[in-house]
Amino acid sequence: MEPVRPRRLLLGPGPSNVHPRVLRALAQPLMGHLDPAFFRVLEELQARLRRLFGTGNSMTLPLSGTGSAGMEACFVNLVEPGDRVVIGVAGVFGERMCEVARRLGAEVTRVVAEPGTPLSDDAMAEAILRVSPAAVAFVHAETSTGVCQPVEGIARTAREAGALLILDCVTSLGGLPLAFDEWGVDAAYSATQKCLSCPPGLAPASFSERAVERARRRRTPVPSWYLDLNLLAGYYGSERVYHHTAPVSMLVALVEALRMVEEEGMEERAERHRAAAAALLQGLAPLGFEPLVAAPHRLPMLSALRLPAAVASAGEAALRRQLLEKYGIEVGGGLGPLAGRIWRIGLMGENARLTTVEALITALRRELG
Amino acid sequence: MEPVRPRRLLLGPGPSNVHPRVLRALAQPLMGHLDPAFFRVLEELQARLRRLFGTGNSMTLPLSGTGSAGMEACFVNLVEPGDRVVIGVAGVFGERMCEVARRLGAEVTRVVAEPGTPLSDDAMAEAILRVSPAAVAFVHAETSTGVCQPVEGIARTAREAGALLILDCVTSLGGLPLAFDEWGVDAAYSATQKCLSCPPGLAPASFSERAVERARRRRTPVPSWYLDLNLLAGYYGSERVYHHTAPVSMLVALVEALRMVEEEGMEERAERHRAAAAALLQGLAPLGFEPLVAAPHRLPMLSALRLPAAVASAGEAALRRQLLEKYGIEVGGGLGPLAGRIWRIGLMGENARLTTVEALITALRRELG
Repeated sequence: MEPVRPRRLLLGPGPSNVHPRVLRALAQPLMGHLDPAFFRVLEELQARLRRLFGTGNSMTLPLSGTGSAGMEACFVNLVEPGDRVVIGVAGVFGERMCEVARRLGAEVTRVVAEPGTPLSDDAMAEAILRVSPAAVAFVHAETSTGVCQPVEGIARTAREAGALLILDCVTSLGGLPLAFDEWGVDAAYSATQKCLSCPPGLAPASFSERAVERARRRRTPVPSWYLDLNLLAGYYGSERVYHHTAPVSMLVALVEALRMVEEEGMEERAERHRAAAAALLQGLAPLGFEPLVAAPHRLPMLSALRLPAAVASAGEAALRRQLLEKYGIEVGGGLGPLAGRIWRIGLMGENARLTTVEALITALRRELG
Repeated sequence: MEPVRPRRLLLGPGPSNVHPRVLRALAQPLMGHLDPAFFRVLEELQARLRRLFGTGNSMTLPLSGTGSAGMEACFVNLVEPGDRVVIGVAGVFGERMCEVARRLGAEVTRVVAEPGTPLSDDAMAEAILRVSPAAVAFVHAETSTGVCQPVEGIARTAREAGALLILDCVTSLGGLPLAFDEWGVDAAYSATQKCLSCPPGLAPASFSERAVERARRRRTPVPSWYLDLNLLAGYYGSERVYHHTAPVSMLVALVEALRMVEEEGMEERAERHRAAAAALLQGLAPLGFEPLVAAPHRLPMLSALRLPAAVASAGEAALRRQLLEKYGIEVGGGLGPLAGRIWRIGLMGENARLTTVEALITALRRELG
């Protein structure tokens, strides 16, 4: 029998806690992936994703893998060996993009930002004009630093230079309004376990007509059969022909999570995230936690905080462990060069609430007071 | 609110129906993918998978994608551009292997079997000795034809020729006993939605030390970051360092499904599958359904049946639709060259029961009688 597992308040960089409505949807008896009743679920899911992405892209679909599979899908379809790619690196996930692109034989030009700051439009423009790349890629909400990257300036330059724009929206989807078509995004991917508050395992993604056309006219076959857009189009387009077995239960849960986002309204939801983040920073300041990121560039759903001296000296990992074991609260440590130097506190989706903030602050006051 | 969705009896080639215990596990409140409590789930899961695969391979893990991602993971890690590969093609899934390998730049030698028959050991041995490949691959339980492929003969030849053996166990895991170490399998993948009766979305896989070593000493980087064994080893090995966010809920469900397999006992479970298949063939024979596959080569969990003239002339797809809409019973049509010519009836995992067989036969009698 299923043992009792500890209850957690998930305030790290994702996953976030899942609403009981979504858990109930997840646990519905299974349908087949070729059942007309399931195709209706897929249609609703794809329509809701389009609205949330702010796009009319017909190729908008939930990829059968986590957010990292979404990243891989964008590069593996749109980048060929020898292609030049300009990638903005403002943290671990921009760095991961470089690694993914390099493995596919791309010539990668990196534009780097200091951790905790956004990419500069000018530096990106300079590289794009110099390199004339096939694609430009960067992260909208850098989960390793808590920085919100403005999209439109870089997107405009990419479009003018004839490059496709690939955008990582893993942490922004469901927490910030997105407007792919208005911004000029050609390919984007996200994940379910952040501001959608759905379990991890799917990568909602969207591809513009230009991107679909690029994938169709490749000189070389897409090296991944599993993520080949040309094949996925058969199942996620109007034909609904078998490619691989879709992860039915996760998709049924995702559609329920998307319903909840639309019932609340994206603007209201974004405001809820902003209010929770403000309360968090205000509550943690007296304890000595200082934001890594300057106010205009802070993400609402993920706060990167420099640690007070007391925490740093006592060992931040020990305190995180304490929070988890005594209070059931998970917060995230730093990644890469910021490991041991910051905490990443996520107030994502269901968890972007004042009661959640209070629970964390109360626990920290008790441990540090 | 979650609308009422139709209840289905899933008797196609997978997914199969999921036991309420597994659905309850799936709907447990989430844990983080770096939570020590979740690591205990992973340890249990990996240990149970090893026992079910019949292997001591430490690199035994649930890949974060469906069975097709499992196929891709084996080839993308173990095959490099220019490598020679011998693939046994006895149906659609052997054919898919060729496609996956070709996209990675492999030189593929195909050994073909007539649909509905197994590969011949001699033909495979001839090709292996002639080509001296880096890897040999074939399907244990060909889901498109219902053929059970003997493994040991081909495995022996592959081992003697110094080739790695890649085995597709998508449909056999949980329905037939497996013995990877005894057979000499180097890399194998399966799926959760067949005889494990867990929702689709994960690919249990296992890699021998020889396979892990091959991936480690590649001349070229693994083109897929998401499926790179060298990186996955960090999370699924003893270090448990972050690679991608593991699909927590699906993994919790899978461990519950694996518990149910072990509680029943694999031999007992295999016998249950055999008994259900025998009852199915016996019950359908009077209606004119004839097995595609000769008795010694039939899979217990998936029966491929030639259609009676009455069904073929009335349109088999219409009858399948009828079964689904009037009785809530899903059966599978033929794939590839067998489309329109056979049905594929799955009695997998939870559904390998006489009551299930009776439900189908009663419905078919009513429609065809």
